[in-house]
Amino acid sequence: MKADFSRLDRAFAPQCVAVVGDKPDFKWLRGQSQFKGKLYSVQINPRNFEKIKAMGVDNYTSLSDIPEPVDLVIVAVPRAVAPQILDDCVRKGVAAAHVFTSGYSETGTEEGVRLERLLKEQAEQTGLHLIGPNCLGFFNPAVGLKQVPDQYSGTTGPVGFISQSGNHAVAFSMDAHLVGLDLSKSVSFGGGIVLDSADFLEYFGQDPGIKVIGMYVEGVKDGRRFLSVLREVAARKPVVVWKGGRTEDGERAAVSHTGSLAVSQTTWDSVMRQCGAIKVNGSDAMVDTVKALVFLLPVQGNRVGVTGGSGGQSVEIADVFAEAGPKVPLLTQKSYAELASFFNLVGASYRNPIDTGNMNRGQMKRILEILEQDDNVDNLVLLVTPRMVRGNQLDSYLNALIDVRRKANKPVMAFLSTLFSSEETQVAREVIRKLQGAGIPVFGSFQRGARALRNAHEYYEFKRRTDHGTDPG
Amino acid sequence: MKADFSRLDRAFAPQCVAVVGDKPDFKWLRGQSQFKGKLYSVQINPRNFEKIKAMGVDNYTSLSDIPEPVDLVIVAVPRAVAPQILDDCVRKGVAAAHVFTSGYSETGTEEGVRLERLLKEQAEQTGLHLIGPNCLGFFNPAVGLKQVPDQYSGTTGPVGFISQSGNHAVAFSMDAHLVGLDLSKSVSFGGGIVLDSADFLEYFGQDPGIKVIGMYVEGVKDGRRFLSVLREVAARKPVVVWKGGRTEDGERAAVSHTGSLAVSQTTWDSVMRQCGAIKVNGSDAMVDTVKALVFLLPVQGNRVGVTGGSGGQSVEIADVFAEAGPKVPLLTQKSYAELASFFNLVGASYRNPIDTGNMNRGQMKRILEILEQDDNVDNLVLLVTPRMVRGNQLDSYLNALIDVRRKANKPVMAFLSTLFSSEETQVAREVIRKLQGAGIPVFGSFQRGARALRNAHEYYEFKRRTDHGTDPG
Repeated sequence: MKADFSRLDRAFAPQCVAVVGDKPDFKWLRGQSQFKGKLYSVQINPRNFEKIKAMGVDNYTSLSDIPEPVDLVIVAVPRAVAPQILDDCVRKGVAAAHVFTSGYSETGTEEGVRLERLLKEQAEQTGLHLIGPNCLGFFNPAVGLKQVPDQYSGTTGPVGFISQSGNHAVAFSMDAHLVGLDLSKSVSFGGGIVLDSADFLEYFGQDPGIKVIGMYVEGVKDGRRFLSVLREVAARKPVVVWKGGRTEDGERAAVSHTGSLAVSQTTWDSVMRQCGAIKVNGSDAMVDTVKALVFLLPVQGNRVGVTGGSGGQSVEIADVFAEAGPKVPLLTQKSYAELASFFNLVGASYRNPIDTGNMNRGQMKRILEILEQDDNVDNLVLLVTPRMVRGNQLDSYLNALIDVRRKANKPVMAFLSTLFSSEETQVAREVIRKLQGAGIPVFGSFQRGARALRNAHEYYEFKRRTDHGTDPG
Repeated sequence: MKADFSRLDRAFAPQCVAVVGDKPDFKWLRGQSQFKGKLYSVQINPRNFEKIKAMGVDNYTSLSDIPEPVDLVIVAVPRAVAPQILDDCVRKGVAAAHVFTSGYSETGTEEGVRLERLLKEQAEQTGLHLIGPNCLGFFNPAVGLKQVPDQYSGTTGPVGFISQSGNHAVAFSMDAHLVGLDLSKSVSFGGGIVLDSADFLEYFGQDPGIKVIGMYVEGVKDGRRFLSVLREVAARKPVVVWKGGRTEDGERAAVSHTGSLAVSQTTWDSVMRQCGAIKVNGSDAMVDTVKALVFLLPVQGNRVGVTGGSGGQSVEIADVFAEAGPKVPLLTQKSYAELASFFNLVGASYRNPIDTGNMNRGQMKRILEILEQDDNVDNLVLLVTPRMVRGNQLDSYLNALIDVRRKANKPVMAFLSTLFSSEETQVAREVIRKLQGAGIPVFGSFQRGARALRNAHEYYEFKRRTDHGTDPG
């Protein structure tokens, strides 16, 4: 079915949502307690009426009784009842029906496969935009539409996320939020029997509020269409793809989970490269790579100039970057001459990484400016250590970095050691907010940041080649 | 110089410590504020006398004036004064002198190299047990002897840590403590011009309080001796070795840092393997691998049985384990028959990983027991999700796991998603405390846990082969 984007606009940012059925703990109704539009419940069990009323929600015993148009219906009824509810959705003219209900082909049973076929036929015959089944549906924090009650709301960001797994959709939204990266829209599409990853990718591709797209997929139903959409969208904005089921064990788990068919990993990798998509292999890499793409200026080279650490950290970061791909090179003679004019070498060193030691910490702004001007350096990296977080040096460090970022033509990133007691978590969050607010992504480990920088660099390299017509795509 | 272990016993667990000189913020005196023995200061600047007195510390203008024997002297004077202080140490008959002072060969200057040679000669001629220079010395939390004021005290654990980098020594102690892993003794030896990594390795090797040893080294002065000690110690207890300067960029940073000479990475890797040491490539891998070795029963195989997650998590963990080395295999027919007798497949699956879904969560104990009995499974893995942390299911989950661990002959590990708001950090810590108290290590990411399990398995494989005489060592 060809997705009607005006319907998806209504479904992702609804004015009226109805939850039909629910979990025993009213997870779905509770999940929409911050929803800014009108929320209705549809349940037939009188024992629940008081509880629903106590939540401030109007209940009807039938969808058709709701006295206004409904944009999105969340279907959380037993699978035997689902067809009847979907009929009601069609009659009501809803924009989309998100089917949370499970028990279809993913169970591997004949009955499950048969019921799923019926569901798909029903949607295709009526043109119903069915999301799922067996999924968590839509997340739009700006309007308070959630996949689980714990998700945040009241804020928005430049990221779109498309996930075959509900768990990964929720985990990404919350992991990313904790590190200062907010979503515009996210969808968990589960079985994807009507609308699939390619539909949401195409939709997010044309959404001006979405600058970077992340995807978790286990399998693809229409490979040709998926790749053509991916190629087209990746040419306009970065698409980061995490494929679940890369290994034999993982593939077996994916078959149990979503019934996805196997794709050879080699084929997948080469196809991703040809499409200009950025391949990642897990949740951490997804969050980090999206973060790098959201905050960094376009990455034009893989050489980093590093400062702010001490001896052992410098060795570690140089090893970690080199093993991930980026390099920590020698600086130009011009930079060394400038550094030699003021740098105190006791307990310090300035080859690159530049270990300031205690004696040179006051010169951080000057050091960063030297790195910014250095022709051997493509990207700037500052380490922020717990000691600084507690000390009064923190603000001058952060301001020096922010100032360099404002003037610089080079991407700037920071590492904030995760060595925090719980009391320091608040300070760490403030550092992240301040730096990322200025376009400087903050990473908690060298490995994670190095990998994200490499991924961002590869994306911009691909774009540069294709934009200049030197890559067949 | 051959280390005298009775002197090291005194230095690591001193009854009397003197700090000679200090940093302007009295970092060294403040660092010993929880020290259980007697603490003295030696300073000659009268302007500091009041501040030292305010800290409750007696100051003398000369080490020789201290009216009792001194076990450990922390030397934090300018490098020009150091030789005179070391003379005083010899006359006073101290067990060891920890030289924090820097500005020696690590600066790469002729003057630094010359002064270091003098320091080394002075120690060797007098038999002084000199630690350093340019290092943070000793950490013994049980007696409150610290490398930096922020380290913990009043507790002890089974881990010894030996580090050429002060920063890595401190970071390891605090990272490990945050995840419930405490140190017995740690030493940062910096330049190592008198006592070096091999000396501390030999000493920790014979220390009955140390069960697992971690090491960070950038270079080794006497390779033959280091390897012979390593081989001998690794045969008795696990030694986890992190080599800094594995890459060209890292090696250059290491030369700036400690002046270490290059070793080819291939040679190093093969030598580590022959010695039965466990090689890791960074701080996270160090903490995780030490944690696995401290808490897990000996790992006898690489196949894991996993439960507690949901669909997408199961695919992820299977991919991640398979890519790191361990496998998530199919279970035996006997297990499947048992699972089929009670397992509800709607929203769930039991191939392995076993996704309980909501319907089967009450059967967690039974599921874990089936995995424990399964012949295809060598290790048990439980995922603890944030939802459980908040819900009332948490205790029954943890108790089921602890109960299985008590009876099991198989290693048991847990994953606790790091998806926590700061309010949940306290609960997460309690989960870690409870599980690790029962011998179940808890990891925050699949990647980190999978790598740690692989490393522990490789260690026990090596031991099994060598104990049976089937490996040349």
